[in-house]
Amino acid sequence: MNDGSHGIESIEQPGSTISELLAAGEVAGAAVELNRLSPAAQAKVIADLTPEDAAELVAQVVDISAVEILDQLPTSFAASILGEVVSDHRADLIAELPSKTAQSILEQMDDVEAEDTIALLSYASDTAGGLMVKEYLKFDVNQTVRSVVEDLQENSERYRKMDVQYSFVCESGRLVGVLPLRDLLLSPRQSTLEDVMIKKPLSVVDSTSIQDLESVFENHSFVGVPVVNESGDLLGVVNRLAVESARSQRDRSDYLKSQGIVGGEEVRSLPLWDRSRRRLSWLSVNILLNIVAASVIAVYQDTLQSVIALAVFLPIISDMSGCSGNQAVAVSMRELSLKLIKPTEFLRVWLKEISVGLVNGVALGLLIAAAAMLWKGDALLGFVVGTALCVNTMIAVSFGGMVPLVLKRLGVDPAIASGPLLTTLTDMCGFFLVLGLASMLMV
Amino acid sequence: MNDGSHGIESIEQPGSTISELLAAGEVAGAAVELNRLSPAAQAKVIADLTPEDAAELVAQVVDISAVEILDQLPTSFAASILGEVVSDHRADLIAELPSKTAQSILEQMDDVEAEDTIALLSYASDTAGGLMVKEYLKFDVNQTVRSVVEDLQENSERYRKMDVQYSFVCESGRLVGVLPLRDLLLSPRQSTLEDVMIKKPLSVVDSTSIQDLESVFENHSFVGVPVVNESGDLLGVVNRLAVESARSQRDRSDYLKSQGIVGGEEVRSLPLWDRSRRRLSWLSVNILLNIVAASVIAVYQDTLQSVIALAVFLPIISDMSGCSGNQAVAVSMRELSLKLIKPTEFLRVWLKEISVGLVNGVALGLLIAAAAMLWKGDALLGFVVGTALCVNTMIAVSFGGMVPLVLKRLGVDPAIASGPLLTTLTDMCGFFLVLGLASMLMV
Repeated sequence: MNDGSHGIESIEQPGSTISELLAAGEVAGAAVELNRLSPAAQAKVIADLTPEDAAELVAQVVDISAVEILDQLPTSFAASILGEVVSDHRADLIAELPSKTAQSILEQMDDVEAEDTIALLSYASDTAGGLMVKEYLKFDVNQTVRSVVEDLQENSERYRKMDVQYSFVCESGRLVGVLPLRDLLLSPRQSTLEDVMIKKPLSVVDSTSIQDLESVFENHSFVGVPVVNESGDLLGVVNRLAVESARSQRDRSDYLKSQGIVGGEEVRSLPLWDRSRRRLSWLSVNILLNIVAASVIAVYQDTLQSVIALAVFLPIISDMSGCSGNQAVAVSMRELSLKLIKPTEFLRVWLKEISVGLVNGVALGLLIAAAAMLWKGDALLGFVVGTALCVNTMIAVSFGGMVPLVLKRLGVDPAIASGPLLTTLTDMCGFFLVLGLASMLMV
Repeated sequence: MNDGSHGIESIEQPGSTISELLAAGEVAGAAVELNRLSPAAQAKVIADLTPEDAAELVAQVVDISAVEILDQLPTSFAASILGEVVSDHRADLIAELPSKTAQSILEQMDDVEAEDTIALLSYASDTAGGLMVKEYLKFDVNQTVRSVVEDLQENSERYRKMDVQYSFVCESGRLVGVLPLRDLLLSPRQSTLEDVMIKKPLSVVDSTSIQDLESVFENHSFVGVPVVNESGDLLGVVNRLAVESARSQRDRSDYLKSQGIVGGEEVRSLPLWDRSRRRLSWLSVNILLNIVAASVIAVYQDTLQSVIALAVFLPIISDMSGCSGNQAVAVSMRELSLKLIKPTEFLRVWLKEISVGLVNGVALGLLIAAAAMLWKGDALLGFVVGTALCVNTMIAVSFGGMVPLVLKRLGVDPAIASGPLLTTLTDMCGFFLVLGLASMLMV
């Protein structure tokens, strides 16, 4: 908090180059510029920086770019950049690198860093082990407050960098207490840590899931929570920020997936083929589902030929049912992620959805019936399309509300699969309702 | 960090009542149960709690429920609950209450709290003023370290609750320095704050936007940043967490809006009519747009009647173009929110999109042409639908990539409007391409 000299207004100066921005301390501005370059050009810029500056920048670009950059640098330079990155992020980046590159980068790191990184790599990214950092303050239970204060004073530069709020107290490796730094202020210097520490502190084991970590941080106002193994040895610290940002990353990626960007984040600086392939994999599944749904129309070709006006309403009913269903999907996804519903509560969700579906179905059905009658003056046409849309809206919200729950129980990612599955089902039902009703009543 | 006694495993005990869960300290578990009740039932439960317990719970439920609960409680009790809630959240809740209720709650609060709240209410929620808290430590520049340490010792309980990491140093109200609490540890007791503080600290003015705050926190590792007015008087502190959570709320709400949940968050415990109305407002705009798009089909009725097989392909082309376009929308939304593109870079976005659109359009076009030929053995039919889908995919990604940028420049929320606008445009173009081509080549 010691650089009031440059205001935040100057972050975006047109024409500033990345090195000028860095020299002015505008890391975020430099990262914005860097993010606009292709990975090869990014690596070239990074290669000319000091490891410290490079690390600051790498921490700012999206992970997928950071990995590409590191992959293209000489491994010794990549190792010194990663030496400046906080341990959990370091492990995340190494996990994404091709294994040969990762191996030779690890060999060039200093031993403690490499060891910490390998330890972190062994955890799934959505567990306490995968989210924790190895940078923390640890003291022995028999040390005095005075010796801790002296240690803090001697190593204050290093600790400042680590941004730690607590020190942890161990007895032969096992976590036995915690001491907020400010409590040191209030304690007599000759006491031992055992006398002043908070005993039996809350801790989580390394396998704790991110959902449980979210509950811990919702329930307590701690900045960080210590992570231990089964026998209680201190392994690291999970910070609130890491959990928050993992959650926000998940929310963002759910949105991307729901819109058909699957298989990793897309930024437009990636090569064309990567971007095409990712989008196409999802589109090609979708087109097959679409053909399946449209085959219902093929079955009723004759009906359609004799009442050609129905062709105008098929895309409307398909699209509107998709919209209603997606609203229900969105509410279910959100309630699942905020844990307002359990994946087993089919009946509750269905009852809540079918009532909304009835109200909205009647409203939309009347609207479309009115439109049909205004256009063709044909009451029967209005009745057919209105009834079809009304019933299909109820079907769509029922499916939409429950599809994410079913997928979640089956272990399939609801953000990817809900949309296409829902659309196929509602399209088939919608086409069948319109054309089936028409073949009974109008032909 | 002093309650290791109950593990996180016990958070969800079936059958536990809210008060049992609260008694066991399981606030998050109690909040989950509370969130499942209707607002009226929630208010009944809350009314039986102490203000402290009630405040803990209210902080955990979604804001829309918290407001409903407060609205139904006696205003004096609502005032004492809000007295326990941190100032920025307090102001957010009061802002959402009906103004008469808000007024009488404010009258029953203690004077300082009411004054702080009214000050916070005057800010837009996405500015530093709207995100800051009024709970911070402030000392005078002429105080000694000893007097500060003594004050901390005397009021340690209150400060612990406030979860403050810095103390701010003022000279007749103006912010002149900052002192991390841990630096107090390392400073001689007889020094004045002027001697030991970090001078000219980074601060933001109260009108700073949330985007600029995000840059500040990306650029610096601070836990919080002081907020001042134009003349430099200290007004409050914006915490990193408040900015992070505002961002994550925005991401979540963008997802909901993109799926057609507009006009506030929906939870299924809200009354049926509220939920219906919110969803319907968006659906009814959408159905009108759909009718406009489908009118293109009506124009080409005769063509369609003579080549009825085309009717099968209309919904496929409409849906697939919508999918391709939505992928481009999602990438633009994300790049806008991560500031990887500026809302003025139409040409760059278009060039990046049209190339992906060409590749994917050719691939999808060939697929649908093959399907048409397999089904009808009609090469001309295959050519017409394949060409239409290919060209319309390029149109869809061009629109999709640019619509969020255009809406952003026009000041319209891209999360709400992008989807419907895109679908209408791509549907019209798609129907026109298929039927126009067919009327030229096939009839």
